[in-house]
Amino acid sequence: MSDRGFVVWFTGLSGAGKTTIADAIEPLLRERGITKLEKLDGDVVRTHLSKGLGFSKEDRDTNIRRIGWVAEVLTRNGVCVLASAISPYREIRDEVKASIGNFVEVHVHCSIEELTRRDVKGLYEKAIKGEIKNFTGVSDPYEEPVNPDIYVDSEKEELADSVAKVMARLEELGYVPARTPA
Amino acid sequence: MSDRGFVVWFTGLSGAGKTTIADAIEPLLRERGITKLEKLDGDVVRTHLSKGLGFSKEDRDTNIRRIGWVAEVLTRNGVCVLASAISPYREIRDEVKASIGNFVEVHVHCSIEELTRRDVKGLYEKAIKGEIKNFTGVSDPYEEPVNPDIYVDSEKEELADSVAKVMARLEELGYVPARTPA
Repeated sequence: MSDRGFVVWFTGLSGAGKTTIADAIEPLLRERGITKLEKLDGDVVRTHLSKGLGFSKEDRDTNIRRIGWVAEVLTRNGVCVLASAISPYREIRDEVKASIGNFVEVHVHCSIEELTRRDVKGLYEKAIKGEIKNFTGVSDPYEEPVNPDIYVDSEKEELADSVAKVMARLEELGYVPARTPA
Repeated sequence: MSDRGFVVWFTGLSGAGKTTIADAIEPLLRERGITKLEKLDGDVVRTHLSKGLGFSKEDRDTNIRRIGWVAEVLTRNGVCVLASAISPYREIRDEVKASIGNFVEVHVHCSIEELTRRDVKGLYEKAIKGEIKNFTGVSDPYEEPVNPDIYVDSEKEELADSVAKVMARLEELGYVPARTPA
């Protein structure tokens, strides 16, 4: 393990399960001895760093760059970061990835049909009716990762499977120590 | 030493020497084994987190709150922060202090007469002529700390003296291990 931290960056549509997976991963990482650990949630960061920004491409890019900058400062001080943000634009994700280095991109996929069916917060219905503008996947683009480090599908997989997949890959990449046999 | 980091917050007028002192302190802290260390400079942070913000009270407060939030996230992960920002309003400094806890306020004092005489960047002359608006100490308020943890005066003290004063107080407060005798 290096002295640097790393970033696990969850990208995907609203409601796909980014934060749910990050929340489930957190205690597992702590159990492996990763105690310097911070979750950066896109919505939470907006209230602290990006109040006043909207959902135009420019404002979204600014928001993602800010999350990226905070993640960078944290990782260079040995902190691990679980970042969850729709982060719809490939170019900005790649820019953040390049500036951080120790960056694991997780694409949390779920079809728009399934998200519309779930619609936990009622946002998709409103977006489809046009009551919310610039809604990613409905009236705003989402550029899927071409070659993410990890791909999970919350429509076809159980949460436990997605979590196991992420943990296994983080081990494989050398970011997380393997579980010691009992 | 606790597992938490701490923040040394340098407040004072533009040109008073906040960043100069922080830059001088940094290697001394590293020498004492404090390796998780990040400098947050008000001007640098503006480019990353606060592009578009101006110098109204509201925008200044927002900028300071953002620096404070990043400092808080860092300290709770064991990182020490040297923050330099004019931070002219007492209420916001106190708010940031309260949210962080391990917070050492350093008032870097220098008289406006001396700053105008030095005027390294030519900003005071422009401010006095009215070419720069909302310039702290000239056309915008600076609320001096009532009871700072450390007071240094860059007009009357040598840099080495100010630095020694800060280090001694950080030792006294238990944030920095005492130098081991040779």
